[in-house]
Amino acid sequence: MKTIKDSVHDHIRVEGVAADLLDTPPVQRLRHVKQLGTASLVYPSANHTRFEHSLGVYYLACEALDHLGIAGPKAERVKAAALLHDVGHAPFSHNVEDLIYRRTGKYHDDVEDLLTGGRVGEVLRSHDLDPDRVADIVAGEGELGQLVSGKLDVDRMDYLVRDAHHTGVPYGTIDTERLVRELRLMDGELVLDEGNVQTAESLLVARALMNPTVYSHHVARISKTMLRRATERLLGATDLDAGTLRRMDDHELIVALRDCEETADAARRLFSRDLLKRAVWAEMEDVPEDVVDADHGAVRGFEREIAEEAGVERDGVLVDVPARPSMTESTSRVLVNGEIRHLGRQSPLVQALRTAQRNQWRLGVYAPEELTDQVGRAAADVLDVDPDGGLISDTRPGVAATLDEFAED
Amino acid sequence: MKTIKDSVHDHIRVEGVAADLLDTPPVQRLRHVKQLGTASLVYPSANHTRFEHSLGVYYLACEALDHLGIAGPKAERVKAAALLHDVGHAPFSHNVEDLIYRRTGKYHDDVEDLLTGGRVGEVLRSHDLDPDRVADIVAGEGELGQLVSGKLDVDRMDYLVRDAHHTGVPYGTIDTERLVRELRLMDGELVLDEGNVQTAESLLVARALMNPTVYSHHVARISKTMLRRATERLLGATDLDAGTLRRMDDHELIVALRDCEETADAARRLFSRDLLKRAVWAEMEDVPEDVVDADHGAVRGFEREIAEEAGVERDGVLVDVPARPSMTESTSRVLVNGEIRHLGRQSPLVQALRTAQRNQWRLGVYAPEELTDQVGRAAADVLDVDPDGGLISDTRPGVAATLDEFAED
Amino acid sequence: MKTIKDSVHDHIRVEGVAADLLDTPPVQRLRHVKQLGTASLVYPSANHTRFEHSLGVYYLACEALDHLGIAGPKAERVKAAALLHDVGHAPFSHNVEDLIYRRTGKYHDDVEDLLTGGRVGEVLRSHDLDPDRVADIVAGEGELGQLVSGKLDVDRMDYLVRDAHHTGVPYGTIDTERLVRELRLMDGELVLDEGNVQTAESLLVARALMNPTVYSHHVARISKTMLRRATERLLGATDLDAGTLRRMDDHELIVALRDCEETADAARRLFSRDLLKRAVWAEMEDVPEDVVDADHGAVRGFEREIAEEAGVERDGVLVDVPARPSMTESTSRVLVNGEIRHLGRQSPLVQALRTAQRNQWRLGVYAPEELTDQVGRAAADVLDVDPDGGLISDTRPGVAATLDEFAED
Amino acid sequence: MKTIKDSVHDHIRVEGVAADLLDTPPVQRLRHVKQLGTASLVYPSANHTRFEHSLGVYYLACEALDHLGIAGPKAERVKAAALLHDVGHAPFSHNVEDLIYRRTGKYHDDVEDLLTGGRVGEVLRSHDLDPDRVADIVAGEGELGQLVSGKLDVDRMDYLVRDAHHTGVPYGTIDTERLVRELRLMDGELVLDEGNVQTAESLLVARALMNPTVYSHHVARISKTMLRRATERLLGATDLDAGTLRRMDDHELIVALRDCEETADAARRLFSRDLLKRAVWAEMEDVPEDVVDADHGAVRGFEREIAEEAGVERDGVLVDVPARPSMTESTSRVLVNGEIRHLGRQSPLVQALRTAQRNQWRLGVYAPEELTDQVGRAAADVLDVDPDGGLISDTRPGVAATLDEFAED
Repeated sequence: MKTIKDSVHDHIRVEGVAADLLDTPPVQRLRHVKQLGTASLVYPSANHTRFEHSLGVYYLACEALDHLGIAGPKAERVKAAALLHDVGHAPFSHNVEDLIYRRTGKYHDDVEDLLTGGRVGEVLRSHDLDPDRVADIVAGEGELGQLVSGKLDVDRMDYLVRDAHHTGVPYGTIDTERLVRELRLMDGELVLDEGNVQTAESLLVARALMNPTVYSHHVARISKTMLRRATERLLGATDLDAGTLRRMDDHELIVALRDCEETADAARRLFSRDLLKRAVWAEMEDVPEDVVDADHGAVRGFEREIAEEAGVERDGVLVDVPARPSMTESTSRVLVNGEIRHLGRQSPLVQALRTAQRNQWRLGVYAPEELTDQVGRAAADVLDVDPDGGLISDTRPGVAATLDEFAED
Repeated sequence: MKTIKDSVHDHIRVEGVAADLLDTPPVQRLRHVKQLGTASLVYPSANHTRFEHSLGVYYLACEALDHLGIAGPKAERVKAAALLHDVGHAPFSHNVEDLIYRRTGKYHDDVEDLLTGGRVGEVLRSHDLDPDRVADIVAGEGELGQLVSGKLDVDRMDYLVRDAHHTGVPYGTIDTERLVRELRLMDGELVLDEGNVQTAESLLVARALMNPTVYSHHVARISKTMLRRATERLLGATDLDAGTLRRMDDHELIVALRDCEETADAARRLFSRDLLKRAVWAEMEDVPEDVVDADHGAVRGFEREIAEEAGVERDGVLVDVPARPSMTESTSRVLVNGEIRHLGRQSPLVQALRTAQRNQWRLGVYAPEELTDQVGRAAADVLDVDPDGGLISDTRPGVAATLDEFAED
Repeated sequence: MKTIKDSVHDHIRVEGVAADLLDTPPVQRLRHVKQLGTASLVYPSANHTRFEHSLGVYYLACEALDHLGIAGPKAERVKAAALLHDVGHAPFSHNVEDLIYRRTGKYHDDVEDLLTGGRVGEVLRSHDLDPDRVADIVAGEGELGQLVSGKLDVDRMDYLVRDAHHTGVPYGTIDTERLVRELRLMDGELVLDEGNVQTAESLLVARALMNPTVYSHHVARISKTMLRRATERLLGATDLDAGTLRRMDDHELIVALRDCEETADAARRLFSRDLLKRAVWAEMEDVPEDVVDADHGAVRGFEREIAEEAGVERDGVLVDVPARPSMTESTSRVLVNGEIRHLGRQSPLVQALRTAQRNQWRLGVYAPEELTDQVGRAAADVLDVDPDGGLISDTRPGVAATLDEFAED
Repeated sequence: MKTIKDSVHDHIRVEGVAADLLDTPPVQRLRHVKQLGTASLVYPSANHTRFEHSLGVYYLACEALDHLGIAGPKAERVKAAALLHDVGHAPFSHNVEDLIYRRTGKYHDDVEDLLTGGRVGEVLRSHDLDPDRVADIVAGEGELGQLVSGKLDVDRMDYLVRDAHHTGVPYGTIDTERLVRELRLMDGELVLDEGNVQTAESLLVARALMNPTVYSHHVARISKTMLRRATERLLGATDLDAGTLRRMDDHELIVALRDCEETADAARRLFSRDLLKRAVWAEMEDVPEDVVDADHGAVRGFEREIAEEAGVERDGVLVDVPARPSMTESTSRVLVNGEIRHLGRQSPLVQALRTAQRNQWRLGVYAPEELTDQVGRAAADVLDVDPDGGLISDTRPGVAATLDEFAED
């Protein structure tokens, strides 16, 4: 049994299978993967790691299981999954996830290969736990999989309060203790007990406010896109393969990017915060449907075309098309007057948040500061974005100044 | 100059006219008026007073004026108004405000009489400030009146974070420092600068979540209604008049209620937390329009009728009809791409919050625990509330238990 | 079972005998007794009550018992004692405790009479608990009495963090969770486990820093002395007896002081914060031994003599002689290299804190601001205090200004 | 002008020379140097960097200068020094500082070479600031140098609260706002104004409690020593020189240690937290004077001898002799009754803390877990440490278990 001091949940008692898993290399590796990737370029205090987050998720899972009255092997399996749920993250967490997926077919929660072999597999089996079943829980499968990866999961509860604590942005301050106390299992579904419509809403609202303020802050998006392209170039320029990349940590990727001639300048820009700027920042209604739905190949094609039309180097233009917004929490279930109801049907807030997400969606085209004007014009032309609509840029006078005032730019 | 330590804003520097106003009886009296009235019966830590809140509002007003670049007599007037904005509150703040209004025609922000005479008037005049103009700012009039009492006022900013700090409910944690930094005056309107749609939304969301959780928690509503009726009876049974009541503090009203034979039992119930329970708790769609819009006389009539039909003592039935929800913050203004826009039009959240407020509205009928069944039936009949609809009560098995689990009941 | 939201410990689960005790009048009365008496005149946010503190002590007792592995009737007895430990407090907590002791022989922890009779006795007996044994635990007797009232008790742990939270002074921030985790029972003694010398020291240090900053801040001491004298006069001027006074709450004492002609002015001064000022503020080395050890009668005699010599009204002079400092925590026990050691012997800090307490001791003589000079001279003469030594006053130029800068004066 | 959100001080406004310095490579590099080096192996949340700390020091310096009434070029120089004060730190901050000093003669605050050349020098000169004079302030020279590096400096104020925030250990919670408000310059000395003995003590106490709990926690010391030896070996085994090492960041050092054959195993142990354990942990009174005062060469000699005598590989034994404790804050100055006094003379706490530091001093000898017994015996012999005295080890039954319970081990 170990007791670990955590800045968010205070003392976390780690015992049973979790205590043995703690010292395995895949879990220790998470100390070297930042929770929010490049977001520390916006919020300098946001240097927390997947390791402390994993401990927090484990802690909340233990609390929830305790309130649900679940113990024994079933509980141990969930606790193992909670601690292990992020071992599949690549360096910089979500930042290069898509890139790895395109080449390995694995998202961060496809962890079967990581749980079956090596020390983790040994530890699980020595506690009579089947690695495959633990991997299923990580993937959100089964009744208790919902607790680790679902609409009301402890993963989200931990990251919201933790990200708030470390960024200093107060919007993620949800009532985690109340949330884990009020969970019930009814007919195989995880629901919030009677009287908790606001509790459920607060979880959605917290994410809806943290999203534009932290996770999708434009500087976080610019740096994320720069990191992604540089890493893609690194794979092309060296004999590094995506499978190896997936198991590197932040330090190794940073040094690899610096050491490779083709990516050294991008690395310098990224890690000294000499970032590209927005040449285009357009709302969804001003962007043609086929651009919104463009796949990776199409996006790279746009970049080539824009660079050519603007007469700039191809690496100096980045096109960043976020996925269409989705909000899975809206299917959270709450008990109202004795009935299980979908939060999305019970709460008018939920539909509104969906619309808000759509309103916050932005197409970004980024370029070196001195080229944003010419790249902006070329991009408006190539992408057929309405130049009188939502199109703004970091150098259009009067707008840029205020846009950048928040957090660090 | 004085420096006062505050649990929310840390050190508050009080100087100029505010330093002199601090020691006047009307301001010192606020030490004896709780900010949240009977809400401490739900949240036992919520014993904070109008005095510390007034200091907090003064502090935020100073910060905002500083960021707006406003100094001199204009600023002093606003600072005085900020510190004085709550001197018109009766004991238990809003709890007996309607009762006093019906008899004196004064709401808590009609403070002209309190600012013109006595020490406060002397202090204001000695600083060359006109008490009437300060009273106008308290009432929200004029360009800078908005800052003290408007859609984006510092009053709300302070009470949300202060109530969160003292209740322990995390939903009021807004970013006050960002809010006061981002205020601008444009064409005589207070607006939030570019890039602050989420900042504005967070203020509305905080209130929307604090409302059902704290301000309108059913136990707070029951105790508030009990206090109101007991105080009304006190006015009838003694020679106390509403004007005197308005200037009493919490201690005096508590002792007066205990000392008067007609109200002693209600006082005992209230202050030992032996409260009435819900006999009816009905949603708006299940309540006839004329009941929703009933005035004080009509409500008292309902109580008489229900008591008669249920065959219980008249004082044992309380009918509690909240006002129809309104949400004035929805007309907050934010700057978006260089234009001043109404938040209500810019943000899909705002309309949703309005609907949510409507959904949260409840008609309450309260009675002693052992009489809730018979009173509930009589009330459904007299008020024509659909008994198969939203009607629930604290003693209907299965429902009551969960309803009361939150906070203290 | 009830769950109560607390601003310090978050959710507190109240069950068993505690849930039934919660609704008894002696426990509910604590809602109306402020934790820090008149300290809110220095720290305006410090309006927390003995009720929330009692819940906090109950919570920490439950945690400690859990870590100690103690359950069953033995544990229930301690939990009851924890919740009840402050029911013997008079209005304004410690402020008038001596006065009541002189007339009733009871300190606040002599609660046998309060636990045996009435609802509390009924509840205890219905849970098969002997009220006398619970009262013994409140008085700190027996092995587990130490947990409620001893050198390492949960009472102190709660009040330090709670007072810090509500005053805003950060010095009380101890690691309560660690403290309750590390308690062990060895040979009938409560000790802190190996590796906790700093944990134990932090508890002493927190109190040593909170003491001059909060509990013995000179404005708190002035107002406490004013309250004490006014209450003593009230007992003389009316038919109120000390036994009744002991069971009043803050509201009743405030109104009684205002309503009695002899004390109305003192009440006005106190509750509008128009306080007396220091005429003398002398260090221990400048005060004769017999003054340091003067009993209540002697102190009242000094006041008469000083008033006479200064030619002022007798009520205008208050002499305030604090008890000699003691520091019982210094006998806390900690485990070091397998041995139980007295903290006082293990830690050089402890002896130092004892000396520091002695250094912080001050004799106070208080008078209306305009009379501090003449009263100060008379007092130096009557009490034989060295006028060139530690003697300072609130009106000696250059000193007063800075002395008062901290917190509110 | 930029506004940066900080998790400790909320919004930090960066302007003037500081805004231009922020984007220089030496300042941006601090994003990649952890504030507490290997302490995150004990406190997993402690991943904060020298960059955010430098911003915090800059913020507190601005506040202090404002309260001191200092503006203009004098203030700009101090602000620049505050932001730049840590640019001389090597990777992992203090962990490898001695090693670099032995080879380059530079401690982390010898920054003249870093401020004169490159972008930093250009920026300083463009604001008419002389880099040499800024470097002098960083080194604590001159009247205002005390503010950045002295007994009451803002560096310590920031790191105490920041380390408390990120580790979760509450002992560093000092009242920074009060501290910066109460600073005065008298006769060229920085002092705390009247009434601040406790304020000054709290600063010392905070450090005295944070020290054994965080900074010198035995696991932090073990890992620090491992890192130091591995880095020393790296310098020997590769063509890396100390000057280059000094300018690397954490990522580069981690990867270099992993990539070098001679240090790969130490790197694996360190960064997967498979650490050496204590073979000896002895109090000062049990250690001969010449061992306490041994220099680096002597210590390396001891390691060789112990390894030989124990018959283990030389790299498997690490001897860790901390410097004799010093406590420079004890000469802090406070104003008491109008006189400037040394805190060390005014406060009995200060002498006690010095003794406490001596009591906390420990000689450590570390070895792989399975070898601690034989290494412990050999070390006791070679170093002539009393084996019946303070000597304990991580594997002596009964002791190890409890020693390790705190935080993560």
